[in-house]
Formats: sequence, structure tokens, C-alpha cells
Amino acid sequence: MKNAIRPTTIIKSVKLNRHLGCDVVLASETFQHTGSFKFRAGYNLAKHVEQDTILTESSGNFGQALAYACQLLGKKCIVVMPSTSAQVKVDAVRNFGGIAELTDVKVKSRRARLEELIKEYPDAYVASAYNDRHVIEGNASLGREICGLAQEINFVLAPVGGGGLTSGIIEGIKQCGKRIKVVGAEPKMANDASRSLQAGHIVANEQEPQTIADGARVLSIGNLNWAILQNGIERIIEVPEENIKTGLKLLFDLANLKCEPTGALSIGALLCEPNFFHGKTVCCVISGGNVDPSIYKELIS
Amino acid sequence: MKNAIRPTTIIKSVKLNRHLGCDVVLASETFQHTGSFKFRAGYNLAKHVEQDTILTESSGNFGQALAYACQLLGKKCIVVMPSTSAQVKVDAVRNFGGIAELTDVKVKSRRARLEELIKEYPDAYVASAYNDRHVIEGNASLGREICGLAQEINFVLAPVGGGGLTSGIIEGIKQCGKRIKVVGAEPKMANDASRSLQAGHIVANEQEPQTIADGARVLSIGNLNWAILQNGIERIIEVPEENIKTGLKLLFDLANLKCEPTGALSIGALLCEPNFFHGKTVCCVISGGNVDPSIYKELIS
Repeated sequence: MKNAIRPTTIIKSVKLNRHLGCDVVLASETFQHTGSFKFRAGYNLAKHVEQDTILTESSGNFGQALAYACQLLGKKCIVVMPSTSAQVKVDAVRNFGGIAELTDVKVKSRRARLEELIKEYPDAYVASAYNDRHVIEGNASLGREICGLAQEINFVLAPVGGGGLTSGIIEGIKQCGKRIKVVGAEPKMANDASRSLQAGHIVANEQEPQTIADGARVLSIGNLNWAILQNGIERIIEVPEENIKTGLKLLFDLANLKCEPTGALSIGALLCEPNFFHGKTVCCVISGGNVDPSIYKELIS
Repeated sequence: MKNAIRPTTIIKSVKLNRHLGCDVVLASETFQHTGSFKFRAGYNLAKHVEQDTILTESSGNFGQALAYACQLLGKKCIVVMPSTSAQVKVDAVRNFGGIAELTDVKVKSRRARLEELIKEYPDAYVASAYNDRHVIEGNASLGREICGLAQEINFVLAPVGGGGLTSGIIEGIKQCGKRIKVVGAEPKMANDASRSLQAGHIVANEQEPQTIADGARVLSIGNLNWAILQNGIERIIEVPEENIKTGLKLLFDLANLKCEPTGALSIGALLCEPNFFHGKTVCCVISGGNVDPSIYKELIS
């Protein structure tokens, strides 16, 4: 585990700190294997399940992370993806030895295609990108790393999509016996986790929200994630699309860091609550860096 | 020294390795203070000269690096810059407490303005961005870091402008008693160092070459740098502009790394000589990340 997963990259920028009025410790997963934190989950899962074939549905980072993990571990990986997926994402899965099963979602949903494959591979393990204890435990490694930093951290700020990352970080911090507070950064357009916290139970979006933070486009958080987040997360900040974009550009301009829109959620959340974080030391998790150049070039303009 | 200078950021990318056919260890200085390796030089210089005022001319990374170093050390820093410099660069010097002396180069050259300031501040230290023993010794810290890597390195590949970086790396490696070969990556449009090696003496460009790698726009390498490079550098690869651009885009696409054109020279050189580096472990120094968004967005398209 320790040798396969790359330690997170700690980046600090005086320019960024001065701009934001707090001490920002960037924990960048953009240089993790396959370019996002998802490799922590994918590798831990592929290593610990006994099955030799793993099925999943993903149009993004989890697919290539799991494919590469399976390649390293000599397992078979099948990823159901919409046939409209960017070619670069399909190629990434295939180049890491995965089988990309493309489905025309107008004719057959990803879930329906996955159900077919489950019948075809009855012995396979079916992996969720967030609602899985191996995923949460894989992501816990990042929480443990943050606890190991020399600098004392007041808050960890991390994106919330399905809740796999934040629940993992909370578990990792707990394992170290520390009490660092974890704050979630969720797109306002996809605020199901925030609404769930308010309601006291899981609330789902009616449809997949089309936030620019495509890693957070989920219907709802998972029940395993909810069990941890319900009492473990300090709060969730709802981040408007504009702040996600500003966050991405600030990272480009002031920290020389390329990230994907989902990765900019934590900086976007800081921009929402300057008083809350003023003068604090905030570890902002930058979850991934895989972004289409055509989208990125617009965002840095 | 050790506490002020941030360790280089080591990044590895399976996608990049597979594309280039060798084992690339990126030593990225894009996350160094002020966004480039120049802070190593600036800090070492400001710390070791006895003068409290330091004068230099720079339109780029050395100016802001020296300004921040002086801010940290409580010294006064004056940077002569062309009045046509990008506002972001002028602001960077000023935000780090430096005095930006703008000169309209059509009326008065940077050198002429510097001469005036030397008369005005007779007790000041006049710093060259490369031809200075404190600069070379500051950059040597990167050579020592590379020697400390767990992995065995066959070649270090680093940009050549004035020769301050490569000469420093060579010195640092020598200090560690190692024999890692250093290869220079110089823009073909600004190939004075390469021609100097062939001629056996310093050869100068007739005018400042307008390569996209603006950090390498110098008339010639310095004599202190030459004394080290003449016998210490393995070879210099002349990199066409096209390969510099491709290198920058490969770092964006395959390694999630934002860099400035000068920083992409080492990957550009790898592209020039695939057979020479095939199967080797090559530490590519990515010298800096400060690039105008309008230039960057064109290069990643």
C-alpha cells in the first residue's frame, strides 16, 4: 500500500496566503497515480477484494484509477462508460489495461449495462466509487498523511461528491487519534450532502446536477459515507459555480497549480467564508488535475 | 538556508514515461518560493553579501525571487525592469517589497539605468542573475537534493540560459562526490552556450534571441558559469521552438504540471534525442512555472 500510493504533494504559496488571508497548505492529489486521489481508493479496493475481476461504472477518475490499480495487481477491470465520454478518458482506461464498455445512454443506461455485465461475470466484484469500505479505507490514507504533517492544521477542507473522500479523511484522522476538523466543499448546484446534514438523513438530487465540478455530479452520497459524515463532518460549505472557477484560476495564477474544477472546490469554499477561515491554517485538498484543455483554457482566461 | 528554500517537488508520471520511453523524474521548481529555482540563488546571495541594498536588472523570475529574499532578510532590493514588462511581473516585485525601477528602453537601456543607480547607491551590491558565485552556490542546493534521491539517476537535464542553473547543479553534484551527468537544454534560437562548447570559448548571440523560452533570452553565458560548464557539462542539446511547446503540452496533458516555456526545455530536449535517453532514468529539472495565462492557453490548445 505505502509503496504503491504516492504521498500527497504539499504546496504552499505566499501569494495565495496573502490573497486569501489565511495559511493555506495545499495537499495536491493531482500528481497521485492517474492524476487524482481516486487511485488511493482503487488500489486499496483491488488489493483487498478476493475477486480477480472488478466491474464499475465511471466516466471519470475512478475508472482509470481502478484500471491502473488492477494492471499493477494483475486483475481484470471493466469500466462502464457513456459512449459520449471524452476520448482521452476512454483511452486512459484502455492504456492502463482496463476494458472500457461504452454504452449509448439514450438507449441503455450505465446502470442497465452494468447489470448485464454482472450477469455475464457473476464472480466479479462490483465497485462503487465512494460507497464501499475499501474505498473509504483507501482514502483514509490521505487523512493519516495530513495528521503526519509537521505543521498544525486547524481545518481540512475537501470536496464532497459521493462522500468517499471526506469520509475517508475523517476515518484516517480518527485512526491517528487526532481531532482535526474536516469541512466539506460541495457545489451549490449539487448540494445534496449539505441538505442531508440539515435534514438528518440522506437527501438525493432529482437528477445528476450539471456543475462544472464534474467529479461531484452524483445523485446522493452513499450510506456508508453518510454513517461517517453525519456526525464526523464539521460543516459543508455550498460553493457557487463562480467561486469554483475563481478558485481554479487562483491556483493557476498564484500557486502554479493545474487542477480540475472539482479540485478547486476547497479554494472556492475558502472564498465563500473568508471570516470563518481568517488567520487559520487550512489544509485544502486538491482532489485531482485531469481536465480537458479546452475547458481549462477558458477558465484561466 | 535549508528552512528558507523549499525542497524541489518530485513528480513521476506513468503516462509521461510511457510516452517518452524513459524513466522521467521531474524535479519541479514551479512550487519553489516565487515560482522558480531563482529563489535558491536570490536567497543565498541576499544572505551572504554584507551589503544591505541589492541592485539588479531583471524582467522575470530573478527580480521577484531577489525581492522576496530581501524581504525575508530585511534588505532593500531595487530591480531595473523595462517599462514594457507585464504588469503582473512588476506587481510581483512590488508585492514582495522590492522597488521596481521602470525604464523606457527606447530612451534608456536597462544597463544605463542600472549604471545610474550604481552611482546613486555606491554601497549597494550589484547582482547578476547567473554570473555570480552566490547564485551558483544557491543553485548548487538543487544538485545536492538530486544526489539525495532514493532512485539512481543517469542524467540530469536542465535548461541553459545564462548558465547559472546548470553550473550550480554541477557544483552541487560535485560537492556530494557523485558523478551524475548533467545535460543542458538550450533553445536552438539562442544556442550561444552550445556554440561556446564547440568553439572552446564563450560565444555571444548578436542580440537577445526572441525564443518563447524567455528565461533563456541572454546574450551569452557568464564567465563564472563557463569555467564550470566548459568541462563539467556532458553536452548541450539545441531544442527547436516546436519541441519546447510540445514539452509544455505534454507536461500539462500527461503529468498535470503547469510550467513556463523555459521550464519545458528539458522535456523538449528529451524529444530531440529519444535514442540517447531510451531506457535511462532522467531527472528533468522544470525550472519555473510563471507564465502569462494568455500565452499558456494558446500552448495547451
